[in-house]
Amino acid sequence: MFRNQYDNDISTWSPQGRLHQIEYALEAVKQGSASVGLRSNTHVVLLALKRSSGELASHQQKLFRIDNHMGIAIAGLVSDARVLSNFMRTECMKSKMMYDRPMPGSRLVSLIGDKAQANTQNYGRRPYGVGLLVGSYDEDTGPHLYECLPNANCLEYFAVSIGAKSQSAKTYLEKFAKDFGDIDVDALILHGLHALRETLQQDKELNLKNCSIGVVGKDHDWEIIEGDRLKAYLDQLESGSSSTSTGGAAAEELPQGEAMDTE
Amino acid sequence: MFRNQYDNDISTWSPQGRLHQIEYALEAVKQGSASVGLRSNTHVVLLALKRSSGELASHQQKLFRIDNHMGIAIAGLVSDARVLSNFMRTECMKSKMMYDRPMPGSRLVSLIGDKAQANTQNYGRRPYGVGLLVGSYDEDTGPHLYECLPNANCLEYFAVSIGAKSQSAKTYLEKFAKDFGDIDVDALILHGLHALRETLQQDKELNLKNCSIGVVGKDHDWEIIEGDRLKAYLDQLESGSSSTSTGGAAAEELPQGEAMDTE
Amino acid sequence: MFRNQYDNDISTWSPQGRLHQIEYALEAVKQGSASVGLRSNTHVVLLALKRSSGELASHQQKLFRIDNHMGIAIAGLVSDARVLSNFMRTECMKSKMMYDRPMPGSRLVSLIGDKAQANTQNYGRRPYGVGLLVGSYDEDTGPHLYECLPNANCLEYFAVSIGAKSQSAKTYLEKFAKDFGDIDVDALILHGLHALRETLQQDKELNLKNCSIGVVGKDHDWEIIEGDRLKAYLDQLESGSSSTSTGGAAAEELPQGEAMDTE
Amino acid sequence: MFRNQYDNDISTWSPQGRLHQIEYALEAVKQGSASVGLRSNTHVVLLALKRSSGELASHQQKLFRIDNHMGIAIAGLVSDARVLSNFMRTECMKSKMMYDRPMPGSRLVSLIGDKAQANTQNYGRRPYGVGLLVGSYDEDTGPHLYECLPNANCLEYFAVSIGAKSQSAKTYLEKFAKDFGDIDVDALILHGLHALRETLQQDKELNLKNCSIGVVGKDHDWEIIEGDRLKAYLDQLESGSSSTSTGGAAAEELPQGEAMDTE
Amino acid sequence: MFRNQYDNDISTWSPQGRLHQIEYALEAVKQGSASVGLRSNTHVVLLALKRSSGELASHQQKLFRIDNHMGIAIAGLVSDARVLSNFMRTECMKSKMMYDRPMPGSRLVSLIGDKAQANTQNYGRRPYGVGLLVGSYDEDTGPHLYECLPNANCLEYFAVSIGAKSQSAKTYLEKFAKDFGDIDVDALILHGLHALRETLQQDKELNLKNCSIGVVGKDHDWEIIEGDRLKAYLDQLESGSSSTSTGGAAAEELPQGEAMDTE
Amino acid sequence: MFRNQYDNDISTWSPQGRLHQIEYALEAVKQGSASVGLRSNTHVVLLALKRSSGELASHQQKLFRIDNHMGIAIAGLVSDARVLSNFMRTECMKSKMMYDRPMPGSRLVSLIGDKAQANTQNYGRRPYGVGLLVGSYDEDTGPHLYECLPNANCLEYFAVSIGAKSQSAKTYLEKFAKDFGDIDVDALILHGLHALRETLQQDKELNLKNCSIGVVGKDHDWEIIEGDRLKAYLDQLESGSSSTSTGGAAAEELPQGEAMDTE
Amino acid sequence: MFRNQYDNDISTWSPQGRLHQIEYALEAVKQGSASVGLRSNTHVVLLALKRSSGELASHQQKLFRIDNHMGIAIAGLVSDARVLSNFMRTECMKSKMMYDRPMPGSRLVSLIGDKAQANTQNYGRRPYGVGLLVGSYDEDTGPHLYECLPNANCLEYFAVSIGAKSQSAKTYLEKFAKDFGDIDVDALILHGLHALRETLQQDKELNLKNCSIGVVGKDHDWEIIEGDRLKAYLDQLESGSSSTSTGGAAAEELPQGEAMDTE
Repeated sequence: MFRNQYDNDISTWSPQGRLHQIEYALEAVKQGSASVGLRSNTHVVLLALKRSSGELASHQQKLFRIDNHMGIAIAGLVSDARVLSNFMRTECMKSKMMYDRPMPGSRLVSLIGDKAQANTQNYGRRPYGVGLLVGSYDEDTGPHLYECLPNANCLEYFAVSIGAKSQSAKTYLEKFAKDFGDIDVDALILHGLHALRETLQQDKELNLKNCSIGVVGKDHDWEIIEGDRLKAYLDQLESGSSSTSTGGAAAEELPQGEAMDTE
Repeated sequence: MFRNQYDNDISTWSPQGRLHQIEYALEAVKQGSASVGLRSNTHVVLLALKRSSGELASHQQKLFRIDNHMGIAIAGLVSDARVLSNFMRTECMKSKMMYDRPMPGSRLVSLIGDKAQANTQNYGRRPYGVGLLVGSYDEDTGPHLYECLPNANCLEYFAVSIGAKSQSAKTYLEKFAKDFGDIDVDALILHGLHALRETLQQDKELNLKNCSIGVVGKDHDWEIIEGDRLKAYLDQLESGSSSTSTGGAAAEELPQGEAMDTE
Repeated sequence: MFRNQYDNDISTWSPQGRLHQIEYALEAVKQGSASVGLRSNTHVVLLALKRSSGELASHQQKLFRIDNHMGIAIAGLVSDARVLSNFMRTECMKSKMMYDRPMPGSRLVSLIGDKAQANTQNYGRRPYGVGLLVGSYDEDTGPHLYECLPNANCLEYFAVSIGAKSQSAKTYLEKFAKDFGDIDVDALILHGLHALRETLQQDKELNLKNCSIGVVGKDHDWEIIEGDRLKAYLDQLESGSSSTSTGGAAAEELPQGEAMDTE
Repeated sequence: MFRNQYDNDISTWSPQGRLHQIEYALEAVKQGSASVGLRSNTHVVLLALKRSSGELASHQQKLFRIDNHMGIAIAGLVSDARVLSNFMRTECMKSKMMYDRPMPGSRLVSLIGDKAQANTQNYGRRPYGVGLLVGSYDEDTGPHLYECLPNANCLEYFAVSIGAKSQSAKTYLEKFAKDFGDIDVDALILHGLHALRETLQQDKELNLKNCSIGVVGKDHDWEIIEGDRLKAYLDQLESGSSSTSTGGAAAEELPQGEAMDTE
Repeated sequence: MFRNQYDNDISTWSPQGRLHQIEYALEAVKQGSASVGLRSNTHVVLLALKRSSGELASHQQKLFRIDNHMGIAIAGLVSDARVLSNFMRTECMKSKMMYDRPMPGSRLVSLIGDKAQANTQNYGRRPYGVGLLVGSYDEDTGPHLYECLPNANCLEYFAVSIGAKSQSAKTYLEKFAKDFGDIDVDALILHGLHALRETLQQDKELNLKNCSIGVVGKDHDWEIIEGDRLKAYLDQLESGSSSTSTGGAAAEELPQGEAMDTE
Repeated sequence: MFRNQYDNDISTWSPQGRLHQIEYALEAVKQGSASVGLRSNTHVVLLALKRSSGELASHQQKLFRIDNHMGIAIAGLVSDARVLSNFMRTECMKSKMMYDRPMPGSRLVSLIGDKAQANTQNYGRRPYGVGLLVGSYDEDTGPHLYECLPNANCLEYFAVSIGAKSQSAKTYLEKFAKDFGDIDVDALILHGLHALRETLQQDKELNLKNCSIGVVGKDHDWEIIEGDRLKAYLDQLESGSSSTSTGGAAAEELPQGEAMDTE
Repeated sequence: MFRNQYDNDISTWSPQGRLHQIEYALEAVKQGSASVGLRSNTHVVLLALKRSSGELASHQQKLFRIDNHMGIAIAGLVSDARVLSNFMRTECMKSKMMYDRPMPGSRLVSLIGDKAQANTQNYGRRPYGVGLLVGSYDEDTGPHLYECLPNANCLEYFAVSIGAKSQSAKTYLEKFAKDFGDIDVDALILHGLHALRETLQQDKELNLKNCSIGVVGKDHDWEIIEGDRLKAYLDQLESGSSSTSTGGAAAEELPQGEAMDTE
């Protein structure tokens, strides 16, 4: 009961130095269906679980194209995600027009952070209720995977998951992440599907309709994998444990200038 | 009692990561009289139940023309619907003037989503209290049926229903939706009337005054069906079960590039 | 006690999906003295009961002229009515200056609806506390009778009543409305007086001071009936039951393009 | 206790459809010292009781000149009255400059109504706490007497009183109002003094200091009566019952176009 | 307890038609050290009691020069007084520049009233917490003494006192006011000192430091009396009862056009 | 408990006519470490006790240079002091640029008062939480010492102290203030150190780090005394009672036109 | 319970003269992972503990480059830090463009203080939830180390620590600070690592991933130490107590013009 004093205004500190509204918005992300991201030295793969709004509905869109070299996967309020993805697309277009070069992923992620921070300091606004995984391939610095949360924190990852039951996916990813550096896209996708499968409820299976895959990488514009190609991956997923077969791959080389966590 | 702490401000998150005001606005849609939408490969049909404000009143308008290629059916606050339909008509006019082409349905639906999202993030506004079914026929991509709700979510459907007792209509639609792909407009309308009839209260019947039908499709500008033609459909509805007669139709072909739910 | 949580802010939804402030404003209309409207195929008649503020006061104005082809009757807050009628007069003047034609009734009613809706969505405003009956005669579409309420709903009617004890008037109107189509203005006025008389308190009678009549129709600019002519109608009202004498009139023809309730 | 929920915000309706803040502002008028207004067919007389702020103070000003053909008497918050009378003077000046004619009384009263209504609908304002009696003589339509209250209602009267114990004055006025039509100014003033005397507390008497008289009429610019002339009236008041002496005067002729209450 | 509902917002009426915040601001004036004002037919004298903030401080300034022909004495919040006196000085300067004549006292007092009224009607402001005595000598109308209070009321007086224990001073003034009309400045000052002495606490005496005198009048620009001259008055005050010696002076002539209370 | 009703809004009067938020802000000054000011006929000396934020921190700055002829000492919120001192420096610069002369101390103090008053009347602001001692030497009027408090009161003093335990310093100053008029700067500084020492806690001593001295005066630009010179004064302070040695100095002459308290 | 009255609005004083929201924001700094700063006569070293967001995440960035001659370490809300560091970088760029010289550290720190103070006085904002250590090397005045806190206080230090368990680091720093003046950068870094190690939880060790070092100084642009060089320092840290080896260094010379606490 005591904490209620401080938790209904984004611009009010609790005596413990916490901003409760930000913490509650993070809950909204945890309730979205899961998304998974992982990267090799050449590619980033984003995967998302889609919830159906009934048998006759299209599934909610969980992957959004931002630019040729960039896409996102989301968990949380879809309408907030749409607003943020529109913002990102506009910024990418501006970058091309003004500087004649694609927007670097790190720069765009920093802009999202600023936009989200403003919503945590001004009275009468609420923090966004959505988490983003941003996959980008930058000509100079290669593939990048970022997580952007309602608290305006944006971190780079080798592999990460957000949304409901994302902890199970993380456990899988932590176990196999040391293999991801040099494997090819197909193996990376299979790892991603394994991780995503961990977030399913007991009696559910991945199928053509509840799962989306997005890929971006070296000489590989952002692409969403559907239909036969998606089916092929799902068949492979059922037939065996792709992860163990690639388990012996060499540890990736850390790219220069990035402090990634690979232990 | 506990939840009351968080439910009277649109810009306040509950500790569970929910925005209660949005959920309450969705209730307003559930209390409106039902609307039904369904589509074949060539047409979209929207149907709505009209409530009378007494014997001497005209019935409330439940179907609105947006453009030659587009119309909507509503459930919820009529005055909010009028504001939104004015907005949609203006956007369609702008599209014609600036780009010399009809507004694509998906684009308009996305604009409505943005407009509705703004009402869920800014203090001192309330979410709209109306749900929309949008039927459009786009020259390039054919017929589309969308549902737009107060939570700013906009989904595409093959068949859908909103408003009071809409679950009964959905049950009917899910049962017969596999037949809708290739049937002609008349059969589609009869399916729609069957679904709409499910939302009636025990002792009520569909008649010329409490029911509206709107159609848009290939070479078929938005049209509201009234009078003798409407009577013909109602007579047919009473005389037999049109749904079983079309039950054997082949499953529709999914249009390219759309992930519709047809199982 | 529970509902009090949600009823003092126009922009707050109750958990049941209701906006209590709108419902309370509708109460203000129900407490105003009654107004009655009814129409034939050629004319619209508005009648209103005037409350005196004491013996030495003029009665409150209940009928307002909007334009040559349009007038209104009100129930509820007179000061809100004055603001709205000023708005309507200005819009009619604009229509004449800009388009050189009288404002169509349906268009003006739609503008009022938009104006009223804005007051139901923005924090710090209150819904208007007045209901309007709008009678207009449009050159192209003939006579129209509209009801505009604080919830921003505007419906067309053949006959309607608002304000205190308006239900009694409605009961009368529903009984005789089938006769109104082809009767002349005098018969229409007598029906209106009968209906208005139903809203009087037990021991009150209609007289020259507590009752106003406004008429608009084909070749008949908005006119308020007073003095000898009003007395003639009141005398007729007392001398016999005009309603029964016209009871056998043929059912009116529904004008094309309007879905009026005449059963 | 229950009603307190709704009575501290001007823009909040009570469940009974009332705006409590307006009703409370009307209380402020009832607590002001009384003012009386009455009119013949040629003149309007305003009278006011002045409260002293102690023996050494001038009495509060209760009558204000607006223009040559117009003056007001007030009851309630003097500071609000000053703001409103400044507004009225400015509007009269504008009328002269822009249209080269005096502001008609009915037009000015309508402007005050609009100004007062705005204060009853916008959050963060309060209704004015003053009632006005407006007396004007218009070249075309003769003398007029209006009452303007905090609820933005403005009514025309033959005779009226506002403020503390004004009911006693009204009782007097209703008894003799039928005589006022054709009597001369002096008789009208004496009736006014009789009515004003009714509002005095038990042991008080009208005297040169606690009573103000203003007159406007045909060929009679707004004038405040003081000194010897005032004393003459007061002497007459004491010496006899002027009201009975004029009791047999013929009932006034109602001016054309006005629905005054004279029964 | 009940009244607390209505007393913390300047723009909220209590059910009794009162604005509590204004009444509380009047309390602030009553707690300030007293000021006294009185006038003859040629001069206005203002006197104020100064509270020391300790032995080493200058006393608070209680008298302010506004213009050559005008000065004020205050009781209440000194910082509010400074803001108001700056406003008054600016208005006087404007008058000289724009109209080439001194600001009439009555006009300036009316401006202060408007400024104070605005603070009693707008949400988020507070009424000023200071009372002013304004003394002015106008070329045309002679000496004037006004009292301006936080409720925006401004009254003219022959003699008045505000602040702590001002009732005692008023009692003195009422007793001797009939003498003030024709006496000279010195006698007027002595009367003022007598009145001011009544507001002292039991064991206090007027001295050079706790008492200020300001004078303005015919051929007498605003002047603050200090040092030897002040001492002379204080000596005279102690040596005898100046008031009785002037007790037989003739009652003053009331200036034309002003309704002063002198009974 | 009762007073809590009125103490959390700067623009709300308590029923006793008090503004609690101002009183609470004065508490913030009382909790700051003490500052002392005193003046002779030629100089002003400001002294301040500095609190350390730990052994490794510089001490908080308690003295600020405003201009060549002016400096301040503070007690209370340092960040508020910085904002105010920036404001003062800017005003001094403006004075030089626009009028080509140094800002008079009395003028600047009046500007601070206005700035502080605005914070006590407008909703959504808080009063400053800092007290200032302002020392200035004006070419025309000599040395001046002012105290400016959060209640927007600005008083001139011969000697004064603000902050924690300032009452002890005041007691010292009142005892010896009669000597300050004609003594030289060194004697004035020693008196100031004696007064400041009174505000120390039991077992603390003045030393090079916890004490600041600022001087301004005739032919003496604002200077902060440090290092050896400061040490010399501290040594003198310990070696004897400087105050008694100067105790016999003649009482100062009060400068013309200023009402200082010197009894 | 009592204090809750005053702690949820930044612009409300408690009766004790405290602003609770500022104190709560300081709590947010205390909960961030620790940062340490220390300086010699030629260099400033900043060190920070990085918390991991899981094994696959990059660590949160705790050190930010501001300019060639300046960098910061943070503790608290990372998103607030990003906003402030963007502000600092922009100000440094402005300084170069407008004045063609690097921004002095003291000037920038003062700008941050002003920016933070504004957030403590205006309603509807919250204080920043981050503390900064600012290290700068100014050509004229040499190395500087500042601490900037949410209460808008900015102090200069020889050595300081903020964040969780920073008191342990401060204890170490106070013990050895007397040695820091003349030691070389490597020794200074080792002292910093010793201090930072004190803030670790029981069973944690400094390693390549959880620790960042930033250096700026004479002829030494801002540099972040990583990889092999960082490993060398960590190895040294484990192998012996660097602090004791430098324990005999001479006490530093206090730079002129700065009052640092070195006892």
